[in-house]
Order: sequence, then structure tokens, then C-alpha cells
Amino acid sequence: MEKLIVVKIGGQIIDDEMALSQFIQEFAQLPSPKILIHGGGKLATKLAQRLNVPQTLIEGRRVTDFKTLEIITMVYGGLVNKKIVAGLEALGCSALGVTGADADLIRAKRRPITTIDYGYVGDVEKVNLARIEQWLQSGLVPVIAPITHDGKGQILNTNADTIASAVAAEAAKKYAVSLFYTFEKNGVLTNISDENSQIPEISMTTFAKLREQGKITDGMIPKIENALASVKAGVKEVVIGRQFQTGTRIVSG
Amino acid sequence: MEKLIVVKIGGQIIDDEMALSQFIQEFAQLPSPKILIHGGGKLATKLAQRLNVPQTLIEGRRVTDFKTLEIITMVYGGLVNKKIVAGLEALGCSALGVTGADADLIRAKRRPITTIDYGYVGDVEKVNLARIEQWLQSGLVPVIAPITHDGKGQILNTNADTIASAVAAEAAKKYAVSLFYTFEKNGVLTNISDENSQIPEISMTTFAKLREQGKITDGMIPKIENALASVKAGVKEVVIGRQFQTGTRIVSG
Repeated sequence: MEKLIVVKIGGQIIDDEMALSQFIQEFAQLPSPKILIHGGGKLATKLAQRLNVPQTLIEGRRVTDFKTLEIITMVYGGLVNKKIVAGLEALGCSALGVTGADADLIRAKRRPITTIDYGYVGDVEKVNLARIEQWLQSGLVPVIAPITHDGKGQILNTNADTIASAVAAEAAKKYAVSLFYTFEKNGVLTNISDENSQIPEISMTTFAKLREQGKITDGMIPKIENALASVKAGVKEVVIGRQFQTGTRIVSG
Repeated sequence: MEKLIVVKIGGQIIDDEMALSQFIQEFAQLPSPKILIHGGGKLATKLAQRLNVPQTLIEGRRVTDFKTLEIITMVYGGLVNKKIVAGLEALGCSALGVTGADADLIRAKRRPITTIDYGYVGDVEKVNLARIEQWLQSGLVPVIAPITHDGKGQILNTNADTIASAVAAEAAKKYAVSLFYTFEKNGVLTNISDENSQIPEISMTTFAKLREQGKITDGMIPKIENALASVKAGVKEVVIGRQFQTGTRIVSG
């Protein structure tokens, strides 16, 4: 099986001009084929503030009303995506910036309204692996913004970690996939203020224990759940950390 | 030679939800291969107002400072581009929304500062026809936002008419190209308030005369110049009008 690297780049790196520039350089040096999935950092929240569009977060997830969806499409699909693309192109890395709506890349279903209505938020249904393969084979590096569509003309906001997990899982059918969740910490920490408290390895079994002990909380929970789902789906290597190959390894078992 | 349709969609259609929706339906029905180039309409100006970013126009061209470039990247590359893409996908037309930065599609040079500094505005240097061909052959319809890059990491704002002309001219090397400048009028009018004053045909020679007579003014001048440049470069058919094949034909001579 051919190797494929899928990298998810996290929020705080995007907010920091210097960190983003350094990341782009490091990513450009990774061997191809490779795919980059990015979030939007705090830029969307900042723009919403400037436009007086109030933001609601439920368990760390953004409620996406119509105006917020427009902001997200502008910031994720436009500003952040094209900044990364232009940066990679300058380093000779031929980048194709897309959303899940482009070429029907990622089809999603609007999240059903239960007690909570998340608005225009989509849960991934289908990743178009054939299209991704075409692009990779023609030497392109897909740079995917965390936006999907329902196939009926509606754009939807989708969590970038989830997209990374879904793309890696689908790609695992054809490639030996390494999935790197890159962010501003050395890995999954048991003590958020101690960079040396990094957990070397997490499996389904140890994850349950760590949660019980209250050592993993907040936004890290869905991130690890996504990572574990990728491992289960056949992704060969999953690492959460500051650099690509070092950090907390997510393993089966 | 295989036929190729290149359509530029004009400003006011983008500002009008109903008109845009109708346009998308009509465009989806055109035979493939085809390419769509869009502007951003008044949305960028409106967002700039809301964000208190003052806008300067010189001879109808937007001076693009850093903040305006961010707005343009968000509105053209994000909001408008993805709205069109999602609309086409809903009709089974597989659309790939890109800017000139993506896959090094359109390389431009920042306009030199003379008496006027247009800021981050790019003049087209090179269109990557090989990449366009690849996409067309794989059944994709490129939807191009009027943004280019300099290949050194800088995104640039470029006039959509010019991009349409440059893409059509380059494509004319391999395809029998029809270029349609679609906008809210029946064609080039000698009297802007009389829809029946449409000029059936304009050549280099008649264009000079019409300008002398003051019958063609303002934004229509660069549009026709772009159209004439396309004809000179070998584009088979150029039409400016409300619909694709009817309007003012731009011809050689």
C-alpha cells in the first residue's frame, strides 16, 4: 500500500502568523502524497464580534445560524484556506484549496434537532475518495477547509477534527495512512499547565480509564474519540502533538 | 478542436439571490466542458462598510490595501465561490471552486506603482492550462474567483473580466472557445437606459469609432478591450449580453 500523510492543523497555530508560517514550511517538507485539513482558529469569532453577530457555543461546539455560516464560509473557505494555499505554492508545493462542497468532496447531513439545534452543522456521510485519489495522483496537495454540503445546495459547518478523521478513515481503504493532529501542545497532557505530562500512548481501554480519572477533559475528549475512530477504521498511525511524528500515539486495543 | 465554453458572470447577478439562482440553473444546462469565472458584486463593498474599511475606486478599479485584500479573499474566494459551487453541485454539475492561487492556476505580477498605487492588485502573467485541462477531462467544472497570486506567497486582487479573457485566450490554444460575458443588460448599449439600443457587433475598428462618438463609456471600455484581446488571441466566439449566446458579438476586423 502506498503511504499517505493526513495532517490536521489546529486552531491556535492558525491565529499565530509566525507559527502558521513555520508550520507551512514543515508541512511542505513532508513527503507526498499528503492532505492538509485546517480549522479556522479564533478568526471567525473575531469577525463575528466585529459584525455584531452573537456566537453561542454548546460543549465547545459553535451553533451555526445563517449569519455565522456566512462568516465561516468567508473565514475558513476564503481567508485561511487561501493564505495556506499561497504559502504552500510559494514553497513549490502544489496546493488545491477546497471545501467539502467542491467536487462533492464531503457530503454531510444537517445535524438533527434534538434538545439542541446546532443550526447549519453537518455530520459527515460520505468522503469522495476517488476524487482525492485523482488529485493526489496528479501531484496536488488537497488543503481542506472544515465546510461540507448536503448535496442539495446547502453549505454546512463541520468540525475539522471530524473531517480529518473521516478523510483518513476513507483513505485507509487504499493507502497506508498516517494521521497527525497537530496543535500547540506536546501531546495529550494529564496536566494542561505541564508540557511534560504528555501521555505516550492512548488506546480505547486507557482512554476510558483516563476519562474516569478526570485526566482528559473538554475539547480533548472529541479529539481523542475522532482519533480512536480512525484507528478502528484502519488508519495505520495516529499521533496528537506539536510535531508530525512525536506526541501522543493513539493505538488500538 | 474540442469546444469549450467560458462564462464570466457579472456583478449585479451575484447581488440578486433570484437572478443568481436562475443563472446557476442555466449554466448547469450548458454542455461541458465549461468554466465559470465570477466577480464579487457589491458584497465586498458592503462588508468593507460594515467593517469600517474605507474603499477607494480609481477609474472604477478598486484600490486594494491589506484589509481590503482580506475582505476580497473572504467574499470572492469564500462566500460567493462556495455559494455557486454548492448550487451547481445540487444540480449534478461537479464544480471545483478555486482561486488563481490554487494549484498555481493563475500567476500574476503586482501592478507597478506609477502615479497610482492600486495596492495588492495583480496583472495576469500566466494561466496554467495543463491543470485546467486535467480538471475538465476528469469531468470537473472549474469555478474561478477573481483572485491570483505572485508565486511568492502573496495573494492579489485581479479583475474578473481580465481573468475570463486570459483564461479563454490560453484555452484557445487547445479548444474552440466560446466566451460569454454575462451581465444584467441585453448587450453593449449605446443608450444605457434603452435596452433596445444594443449594438449587434463590435470589432476593433467599430470600437474606436463608438468611443470617439462617446457611445461607449466607463466600465464598458475595459470589458470590450478584454473581449477584443480574446478575439485577437484566437477565441472563436465572444458575446457580451444577458444570455449566453445572444447579445453583442465581439469580432475581429
